[in-house]
Amino acid sequence: MIKIYNTMTRNLEVFEPFNPGLVTIYVCGPTVYDVAHLGHARTYIAFDAIIRFLEFSGFSVKYARNVTDVGHLRETGEDRMIVGAERLRKHPMEVADKYMMEFFRDMDELGVRRPDIQPRASMHIPEIIEAVEKLVDMGYGYVLDGSVYFDVGKLPDYGKLSKIRPEQLVMHRIDPDPRKKNPADFALWKESPPNYPFSWKTPWGRGFPGWHIECSVMSMKYLGEQIDIHGGGQELIFPHHENEIAQSEALTGKKPFVKYWLHTGELTVGGKGMHKSYGNFITIREILQSYSADQVRLFILSSHYRTPIDYSEKAMEQAVENLSKLVNFAESLRHAAEEAQKQGPDDMLRTKAYQIREKFLESMSEDFNTPKALADLYEFVKTFNPVINGLSRDDAAYLHSIFKEMCNSLGLLRKTEKKPSTVDAYEYIRIILEVRRELRRRGIYDLADQLRNMLAERGIVVEDLKEGERVRIGR
Amino acid sequence: MIKIYNTMTRNLEVFEPFNPGLVTIYVCGPTVYDVAHLGHARTYIAFDAIIRFLEFSGFSVKYARNVTDVGHLRETGEDRMIVGAERLRKHPMEVADKYMMEFFRDMDELGVRRPDIQPRASMHIPEIIEAVEKLVDMGYGYVLDGSVYFDVGKLPDYGKLSKIRPEQLVMHRIDPDPRKKNPADFALWKESPPNYPFSWKTPWGRGFPGWHIECSVMSMKYLGEQIDIHGGGQELIFPHHENEIAQSEALTGKKPFVKYWLHTGELTVGGKGMHKSYGNFITIREILQSYSADQVRLFILSSHYRTPIDYSEKAMEQAVENLSKLVNFAESLRHAAEEAQKQGPDDMLRTKAYQIREKFLESMSEDFNTPKALADLYEFVKTFNPVINGLSRDDAAYLHSIFKEMCNSLGLLRKTEKKPSTVDAYEYIRIILEVRRELRRRGIYDLADQLRNMLAERGIVVEDLKEGERVRIGR
Repeated sequence: MIKIYNTMTRNLEVFEPFNPGLVTIYVCGPTVYDVAHLGHARTYIAFDAIIRFLEFSGFSVKYARNVTDVGHLRETGEDRMIVGAERLRKHPMEVADKYMMEFFRDMDELGVRRPDIQPRASMHIPEIIEAVEKLVDMGYGYVLDGSVYFDVGKLPDYGKLSKIRPEQLVMHRIDPDPRKKNPADFALWKESPPNYPFSWKTPWGRGFPGWHIECSVMSMKYLGEQIDIHGGGQELIFPHHENEIAQSEALTGKKPFVKYWLHTGELTVGGKGMHKSYGNFITIREILQSYSADQVRLFILSSHYRTPIDYSEKAMEQAVENLSKLVNFAESLRHAAEEAQKQGPDDMLRTKAYQIREKFLESMSEDFNTPKALADLYEFVKTFNPVINGLSRDDAAYLHSIFKEMCNSLGLLRKTEKKPSTVDAYEYIRIILEVRRELRRRGIYDLADQLRNMLAERGIVVEDLKEGERVRIGR
Repeated sequence: MIKIYNTMTRNLEVFEPFNPGLVTIYVCGPTVYDVAHLGHARTYIAFDAIIRFLEFSGFSVKYARNVTDVGHLRETGEDRMIVGAERLRKHPMEVADKYMMEFFRDMDELGVRRPDIQPRASMHIPEIIEAVEKLVDMGYGYVLDGSVYFDVGKLPDYGKLSKIRPEQLVMHRIDPDPRKKNPADFALWKESPPNYPFSWKTPWGRGFPGWHIECSVMSMKYLGEQIDIHGGGQELIFPHHENEIAQSEALTGKKPFVKYWLHTGELTVGGKGMHKSYGNFITIREILQSYSADQVRLFILSSHYRTPIDYSEKAMEQAVENLSKLVNFAESLRHAAEEAQKQGPDDMLRTKAYQIREKFLESMSEDFNTPKALADLYEFVKTFNPVINGLSRDDAAYLHSIFKEMCNSLGLLRKTEKKPSTVDAYEYIRIILEVRRELRRRGIYDLADQLRNMLAERGIVVEDLKEGERVRIGR
């Protein structure tokens, strides 16, 4: 039984998806006007662990994460894509392409499972216009010049997610048009200025979508009118998710849009929110130059997804150390499973292992409590590390498989089971060096030299010394 | 002075882009309903070499390659995306996502430079509808029930690219609606059947775009009304490119749409067009399990882009051998540039090197004649290989830099600058497979078997077939 903390109710609730066995989940994706940073890593790794655990628990998961390539306005009223385009002197869709491709690569390298669908806002302009028309027809939307606003006064429960009261809403609004019915009314569609790169024809003139409507439309199109889980960073609770609810529930005749709302906590660096002007802005690309994907993941999962995390060198050192504990332990078990002389099962030991596994599952079932689950993993290591040398081959294999299964359900240590990857390149280089030594021993120098050249071409320089060889990698 | 064979004129023409110094190029991209195959590799590697050479020649290149995710009908009238969706029981846009991501990865692994923009048809439905409306208003398009057809009778020069005469056109048409004004008229927009997953609202009913209109619209949006180069496989000359011309020139008031039309020849496998039912269908993923990106590239560039290529093990062996010649030579030069004792320049030698470089540039300037340019590279190797040991350090560095520059302008030998990374694991596995093949050829079976076992331990299963081998990665 999985329990989830629902931002809507501020309560831990038993997880029961609309359709038994199938989980639909929508997580707000990036606005692709710049490179992705540690904050994105935090959110998408957290949801990755959640989704992996749901799949591990037997659910089939249908996961959509959008790409915002139009309509995400800054507080100043500028479209983020156009800010990016002006910086690079390119068409905004070229900018979108560039950063979307980099985002995809960053996520792949972090080992984040790909969503089943990654719809782009720009792919859904006709559906968005139809949805806005429908909202106008239903009386929820009203036109002001070429823009369309959502009348929050029509929804008595507006604010139910953020618990922000209407009177507090005023100060949050970015659009100060004094003609709006309520100061809190938000844009469904914006009229575009002349020669604006985003400009589509509608019954009320040429313009572009507001930020919130894309998620209502795409979520409905690919996952249905009601979804099980909607997630994102906590900064999206208001106004983005609040407004998604308003739009979606207005469109479907008040069907609850989302069953469970999940939000990740903030990531700070040196105690402060990341900001380029603070000099504490860390991109995913940068962090992956210093740390492996698993080290980053362990750092992030060491906090519960809802609590804030502060990034520091010290925290990363801790993650590096903890990861190497897990890796070494798994490696020792694997070795024992292959080499140990003793045979046969030890029931006491297996029972103990199974108990820790149960604890692990409980930890994860409690609102995906990854720090607690990691503590269970460390307990597993601490319990069995001292006895590894005395294990039977079967027990080592048993412990290894249980341990790897738990790690994998968090997305950790998946490398060995999978296709070759960064770490593994070295493994294959070692095989090549080994066969080369053997070729030289047998006097087959032409092939040995050919291998040396092939390695050299890849920046791996092998120098044959009187005894053995010296290998330099990179330059 | 670069000369290009223009499919439109069937002549070699001096290349002069509309704007001196800037080249705009649009290459038709994949329909993302299945994995990409060797035919895609052929076309996109050929254009990659063309674009790299243009950039090498000092042009700034703006390159768009689209992603077709709606509207590409088969001869039978089915949308390819929906065929893919039914096979996988997913929404067509989920299928598009899956195969688009795989296509991006394949292209990255082949070392194909990313286009500056990769627009999707589905991102441009409103613009497509506007273009169709405009064509109807101008009298080029006419409505039949909910579909819109282009009236080819309105364009006396229709057929000018393919040189197919109107009376021959009849047999090519896939849409047999007897009410069409001319049998050759093609669909700009198609009415959708009930409950069809692609269905957008238009003045003439709900439907989806024809296949050709997306390229006219996206090319115009991102590269302007007239572009320098339009490329694609030769099978696109008719009807796709012919119809693009009709649409685009009708929309712009007969401004020539494209200055130079370039088309790549067919790729066959074992003398036959690739087809799943022939058992000769090779995906990019598969070929990259047996060969490196550079080996595949060298195989493809060994034919001129316009001539047909036949894939065979023998042709690949030749490519492997030729590549290792280039690699070993570059490596020896690099070594000499670091280790040689002699100093100072040899003018005769440098003049000779420069002459070959000039020949190389001439070869590439003659309609991007890559087989001739490769022959120049081999001549470079043949000329200087015998004297490497006597080179001065400076001359070795000079030759190395000229040689690498030429290779890089074809997209070859670019890897050396990098450290091992995710992608590279495959590279080392390939080296192992290659040395294993050589060991077997030489009858050294014990070592070959040892390598097979070492790979098997890491989840890479090699099965020896009568001709070549089958490799499975992962479990």
